[in-house]
Amino acid sequence: MTRDVHVLMAHGSGGVLSHELIRDVFVRQLGNQTLDGLEDAALLALDGSAGGNWAMTTDSFVVKPLFFPGGDIGKLAVCGTVNDLAMRGAQPRYLTVGFILEEGLALAELERIVASMAAAACEAGAQIVAGDTKVVERGSGDGVFINTAGLGRAPEGVDVSAANARPGDLVLLSGAVGDHGLAIMTRREGLRFDTPLESDCAPLNGLVAEMLAVCPELHVLRDPTRGGLATALNELAEASRVEIMVREADIPVHPAVAAAGELLGLDPLYVANEGKLIAIAPASCAEALLAAMRAHPYGREAAIIGRVIAGHPGRVVLETELGTRRLLDMLSGEQLPRIC
Amino acid sequence: MTRDVHVLMAHGSGGVLSHELIRDVFVRQLGNQTLDGLEDAALLALDGSAGGNWAMTTDSFVVKPLFFPGGDIGKLAVCGTVNDLAMRGAQPRYLTVGFILEEGLALAELERIVASMAAAACEAGAQIVAGDTKVVERGSGDGVFINTAGLGRAPEGVDVSAANARPGDLVLLSGAVGDHGLAIMTRREGLRFDTPLESDCAPLNGLVAEMLAVCPELHVLRDPTRGGLATALNELAEASRVEIMVREADIPVHPAVAAAGELLGLDPLYVANEGKLIAIAPASCAEALLAAMRAHPYGREAAIIGRVIAGHPGRVVLETELGTRRLLDMLSGEQLPRIC
Repeated sequence: MTRDVHVLMAHGSGGVLSHELIRDVFVRQLGNQTLDGLEDAALLALDGSAGGNWAMTTDSFVVKPLFFPGGDIGKLAVCGTVNDLAMRGAQPRYLTVGFILEEGLALAELERIVASMAAAACEAGAQIVAGDTKVVERGSGDGVFINTAGLGRAPEGVDVSAANARPGDLVLLSGAVGDHGLAIMTRREGLRFDTPLESDCAPLNGLVAEMLAVCPELHVLRDPTRGGLATALNELAEASRVEIMVREADIPVHPAVAAAGELLGLDPLYVANEGKLIAIAPASCAEALLAAMRAHPYGREAAIIGRVIAGHPGRVVLETELGTRRLLDMLSGEQLPRIC
Repeated sequence: MTRDVHVLMAHGSGGVLSHELIRDVFVRQLGNQTLDGLEDAALLALDGSAGGNWAMTTDSFVVKPLFFPGGDIGKLAVCGTVNDLAMRGAQPRYLTVGFILEEGLALAELERIVASMAAAACEAGAQIVAGDTKVVERGSGDGVFINTAGLGRAPEGVDVSAANARPGDLVLLSGAVGDHGLAIMTRREGLRFDTPLESDCAPLNGLVAEMLAVCPELHVLRDPTRGGLATALNELAEASRVEIMVREADIPVHPAVAAAGELLGLDPLYVANEGKLIAIAPASCAEALLAAMRAHPYGREAAIIGRVIAGHPGRVVLETELGTRRLLDMLSGEQLPRIC
């Protein structure tokens, strides 16, 4: 590659350039055994603590607009971090919140956002224990940016990691893809549809608890946020050194999302989700897992979408509805800025 | 008060308006026993963990310029969170980092900032275990904003809190005040002095460990950041329901800082520090504490600056160099934007 010398919007896309930035700048200088795993959350060895793993993670949120159908930046900021913890099998316990406010923001908007954070934290069973507020001049920020960090705990014996997929495993998806990203984009573009698009933004820790109850040997969990399902599958195939095959016909996409995607030229497989998860599990527990997911409000449309094979490590293949096969690459370039 | 309906720069000053925003919006909606304490870091009850307290905290950093004499936004972002943990008597273990990058930022600048974070984390003995990067369009951010969150551990039996000052205690300060804020301001204004001003930005956890070794019964620690020494003393007098008396003549201020403060109309007592701490301790261990502080590189200029009396709870009184007494209020309005 030719090395870019300035930050581009695509560095924040979750795609190829994001991965290069993480590898070349952050991991190179800050790297350690924990960080190098590039998991959704880090597992910590807390001395004096026994019987389960503690997990820690962080995310910043710069979504635009601040309010959108199905949520707002506050709900998103809580759910995003809760979900990153849940993707290590952990239940969230403690959250911290950092606000960067732009001078001139209406306090009433800030109050709505904070109320929404309180509601989401309550649903997730997490406590907000520390916070910080900074203010920047008009024009140096954009309304509100929020960072959340979280600490959670996984039950003893649970070992969920992006690196744990094994040939023979099945790939499950908790529901339809593309809703969050296309809800944001249609709102931003001012488009109106008969069926309004809504973000799927939701805390997934309850769903994960139900899944672990029926399948404690679950191998992998990942929420397909920036870069969408296709990028997340590539990350998993890479981290586990396996090939993943998924069937297009089995990947749920809501008709309104498909229509909006076509109109805007966006493939729902590359669009961010904020309330969905990919699970990879031994075939022996896939049916029980599917039933548990479908019994949960956030997993009603769950489906088995593919399988793990030895194949070419790092490769993701899509079996199309026409019966052909094509490589499903990681998102390259920048599709949807400021989506979360 | 008349309630402002929009966010003002002064909401980020660390002074009166910041406190109102925290009380009226954040604590009202997100409040719980832990958050309501408004401590520098929250103490957590981690089940399965024994023999010491875990502490968690967060801070965002929007300092301008990104690079300044004595540090940069990266060093500041690590030291700020390390110090908030240290103010509960905790040693930092794990940090998370969230970057919000503005499109167009030079990658070389980002690399310098990240290298600086790595060095500061190394000095503090903390590991960076999770990170996140978002990119916003040119004009929607300002170079780099950084959030850090931290998890640390205090030795068993240590109980350091803003609420623990008791009448009869002595008040110690680890060194001269005003260096950070005035280094930033003179740099921002393009002023040059014979003695260049340097930020005092430093991780204080090593100093705190030495202090706890000679005085495990230490009552209070606080780093006087935004709002400066005067505001921090007011917060402590308020939280502990005591009166604090300090002697102007005993508060160290470097001559160059005093001169720059006079030129810019800024009182060093209200200017942010990033490598200083206030300690309040029983009189019986004050001398040992002072000696331990002076033996540490970050406490060489430590001094006993005052005492705690029953008096009027929440009041801070300054005995001036002229022998008169005046109330030392919390910072009101906005003195120094974007200082950290």
